[in-house]
Amino acid sequence: MFCIRACSGLVGCRTATRVRSLHSLPGITVAQIDEEVAKLLQLKAQLGGDDGKHQFVLKTAKGTRDYNPKQMAIREKVFNTIIGCFKRHGAETIDTPVFELKETLTGKYGEDSKLIYDLKDQGGELLSLRYDLTVPFARYLAMNKITNIKRYHIAKVYRRDNPAMTRGRYREFYQCDFDIAGQYDAMIPDAECLKIVHEILSELDLGDFRIKVNDRRILDGMFAVCGVPDDKFRTICSTVDKLDKLPWEEVKKEMVNEKGLSEEAADQIGEYVSMQGGMDLAERLLQDQKMSQSKQACAGLSDIKLLFSYLQLFQVTDKVVFDLSLARGLDYYTGIIYEAVLTQAGVAPVTTDAQNGAPSEESVSVGSVAGGGRYDGLVGMFDPKGRKVPCVGVSIGIERVFSIMEQKAEASAEKVRTTEVQVMVASAQKNLLEEKLKLITELWNAGIKAEVMYKKNPKLLSQLQHCEESGIPLVAILGEQELKDGVVKLRVVATREEVQLIHNTHTVSLITVSTKV
Amino acid sequence: MFCIRACSGLVGCRTATRVRSLHSLPGITVAQIDEEVAKLLQLKAQLGGDDGKHQFVLKTAKGTRDYNPKQMAIREKVFNTIIGCFKRHGAETIDTPVFELKETLTGKYGEDSKLIYDLKDQGGELLSLRYDLTVPFARYLAMNKITNIKRYHIAKVYRRDNPAMTRGRYREFYQCDFDIAGQYDAMIPDAECLKIVHEILSELDLGDFRIKVNDRRILDGMFAVCGVPDDKFRTICSTVDKLDKLPWEEVKKEMVNEKGLSEEAADQIGEYVSMQGGMDLAERLLQDQKMSQSKQACAGLSDIKLLFSYLQLFQVTDKVVFDLSLARGLDYYTGIIYEAVLTQAGVAPVTTDAQNGAPSEESVSVGSVAGGGRYDGLVGMFDPKGRKVPCVGVSIGIERVFSIMEQKAEASAEKVRTTEVQVMVASAQKNLLEEKLKLITELWNAGIKAEVMYKKNPKLLSQLQHCEESGIPLVAILGEQELKDGVVKLRVVATREEVQLIHNTHTVSLITVSTKV
Repeated sequence: MFCIRACSGLVGCRTATRVRSLHSLPGITVAQIDEEVAKLLQLKAQLGGDDGKHQFVLKTAKGTRDYNPKQMAIREKVFNTIIGCFKRHGAETIDTPVFELKETLTGKYGEDSKLIYDLKDQGGELLSLRYDLTVPFARYLAMNKITNIKRYHIAKVYRRDNPAMTRGRYREFYQCDFDIAGQYDAMIPDAECLKIVHEILSELDLGDFRIKVNDRRILDGMFAVCGVPDDKFRTICSTVDKLDKLPWEEVKKEMVNEKGLSEEAADQIGEYVSMQGGMDLAERLLQDQKMSQSKQACAGLSDIKLLFSYLQLFQVTDKVVFDLSLARGLDYYTGIIYEAVLTQAGVAPVTTDAQNGAPSEESVSVGSVAGGGRYDGLVGMFDPKGRKVPCVGVSIGIERVFSIMEQKAEASAEKVRTTEVQVMVASAQKNLLEEKLKLITELWNAGIKAEVMYKKNPKLLSQLQHCEESGIPLVAILGEQELKDGVVKLRVVATREEVQLIHNTHTVSLITVSTKV
Repeated sequence: MFCIRACSGLVGCRTATRVRSLHSLPGITVAQIDEEVAKLLQLKAQLGGDDGKHQFVLKTAKGTRDYNPKQMAIREKVFNTIIGCFKRHGAETIDTPVFELKETLTGKYGEDSKLIYDLKDQGGELLSLRYDLTVPFARYLAMNKITNIKRYHIAKVYRRDNPAMTRGRYREFYQCDFDIAGQYDAMIPDAECLKIVHEILSELDLGDFRIKVNDRRILDGMFAVCGVPDDKFRTICSTVDKLDKLPWEEVKKEMVNEKGLSEEAADQIGEYVSMQGGMDLAERLLQDQKMSQSKQACAGLSDIKLLFSYLQLFQVTDKVVFDLSLARGLDYYTGIIYEAVLTQAGVAPVTTDAQNGAPSEESVSVGSVAGGGRYDGLVGMFDPKGRKVPCVGVSIGIERVFSIMEQKAEASAEKVRTTEVQVMVASAQKNLLEEKLKLITELWNAGIKAEVMYKKNPKLLSQLQHCEESGIPLVAILGEQELKDGVVKLRVVATREEVQLIHNTHTVSLITVSTKV
């Protein structure tokens, strides 16, 4: 339809042009016009002929991709690592629909709302595809009046963003979220979220990383003391958020020229957002003449101090840095925010003093792989009585992780297996299909992963080749002699070692044992 | 937005009525109309006030649902069983995007196409949510020029159907598909699909079931010999498809009154579609004076015979029945079709003679839990050169399975655990948070699933209660005395047995051993 649409569009254009030029000619007859129209309609009919042979555009939607079996095998491994960590920390899991009522998403994402996919109004409710898993989570809590839960949710989300697929950015992508909802003592769940990021990124072995931490209240306090008008906090905040991609000079230009901030205010912000450190920086800023004037900022700074004390007990301060340039664009954050970035290979690793957490040098980030923060107001936005449920959570940027793991697999000599088949049931001569099907039935019924070729008389060589190609370790070979002798030959594909098993009720258990060796 | 939309809709209606009645009054002034409009607009503004306190409708979209942790635990178990079976049969897995180009889905679903969800045209491509996993699979094969693969795909699909959620029918629901693509010898992959259905339904232990088998060619041949005009095959076929829900009289009425079939033709169809059996019925129909006139029907009947011979080797004929009333509505089937139904509890189980597979008595079906068939033409519809890739597959109706498993879990005394936590780290006195966080860090780092309460000073009782509620088997208790003695108390929650472990580098390994007992 797409192709046809484009073509008939062209036809439409050409018609318009031609009719206009005909109009400008004197002496043109209605008959001539009719003839032109008939020709064009015929052309159109040819292009859009209803004979079932439409010329399809064979592609996935822009910004999306299929996963082939190799990618799925990698994806399964990554998910197992991440889910293993979430379960280790006692999380339950939930699932929500891929679309929500449009109103559920309205007013939650600030400037990013334009990236939401809407469904066509086909009668009934107005729906949108979920933009993240956090808003559906908050809706779920409010709807079910849940006041505390520790849950993970792994599912796809949708953003009409400009895809940069080579860098692992898609319009359809997975999010892996872990969130803790409930009224608890300050910074304990927040610290656990960072511990989880640390565990996952270490286990996935993606290379060195750093976790930047800041607090929405420190940002807001900073904006206030730097003289940003109240109504510009959010928009200036999303400009600050660009600091991981743009140099300060560009960011400043946007603040002053586009957002109308005074040069002086921008310069003051510039000074703060260059600061990085650990607990010591929080202490220093609590003494800072300007910053200490903001009650909000002080609350945030005290919490950063407390957070770092728990992070020390969790043994993760080596990777965590308090970074005032971290802003995260989403509207709903109210406290601690954080983001994990991989630091480029070859660049000196972040070394931090466990006491103050200051990084020894600036490392170049190659992009965010996890992020999150505290959002104490979001659930209340859904509750009819505005009852708040404090929440903190983290989202793992799994698509980027997939990309890296795929590159690693490609570079490695080891072949990625896409099935788990243990035995191939093969035949050495013709007309043994019936015997093979009987044997494989025994194996399947005993829980053994087994394959047989879907041919009556495959060649032994092609059966063995299939084993080698797909990494099947064992092959059970039936032949006329074996059938006469009442045995099954079991061969180890890699070494070509063979054993004969007496084919009786014990054969299957013997093969079972062999598959476990 | 939904609520507001509904209200403003009402307002709109009232305006229309009022304006009409105003029109009918003589002497009405423009000023009066303006006043009315202003009042109504004010009312609308109040309803849709932009103060961030919108009154949300707290619900999921029509026909969709959330899964809570208990449901997810059940879902995980069901998926593990099904994926285990697919892997046992050597399947790989793939994934495709949730939406496809609209044209990809066009012309694949016959009368059901109206149930496809379209995305709003927000610029760019026209997109639709996937309606099943089969069409995306065919698109994937054609796009990647894959000529043979055995794959499973578990993902959600979308249909704007009338939801019947109590019966496990949703607008968003999972499909679990297993398909074999490739040019193979007849009926071997087809028989494996039925073997898989048999294995899965047996393992899930859902009660007795029956797998109905038919062939699209037998249906078409039957329609031809009964005098159905060629152009009515598809529409009559979808009427026959209703036989599992409607009595024959109703179905006949639709054929004659709605679809314009002659009474005579309908009656002849009625005779055939009442037939059920096994290999014997196929043999009988091959001799049938009328049926044997159709080459198509004969090809289908011979394949049914061959299929049953393989099913005997696979030891599954006890549940399979050749049923001429099975029609399945989808356009793309070209050969064997099948559907598994659960037979109601209390009804005598289907007992079949292994030789002829005829069911001993009619059992009442409580709905389809799996279905599929052969579709040799679908991939060719996507290939620019029309190259065919023969396919056969099966889809497990997982939502119905979930419903049944949930009911079973509710009826059972055993509690469904939603986490896998092995140890709770607890304290007997105040001010031990730091010590608890140190211990739990050791446990997490050793891979043990552990939890701690997010309170500085929780009561021991509430910590123990949490263990009982969520089924955590062990609790590691720290107290002042224990810290002095350098020990950790480990208690079995169920029996209250306690052991003291010396808290040193070996403690964690001892706890590890304990969690495995």
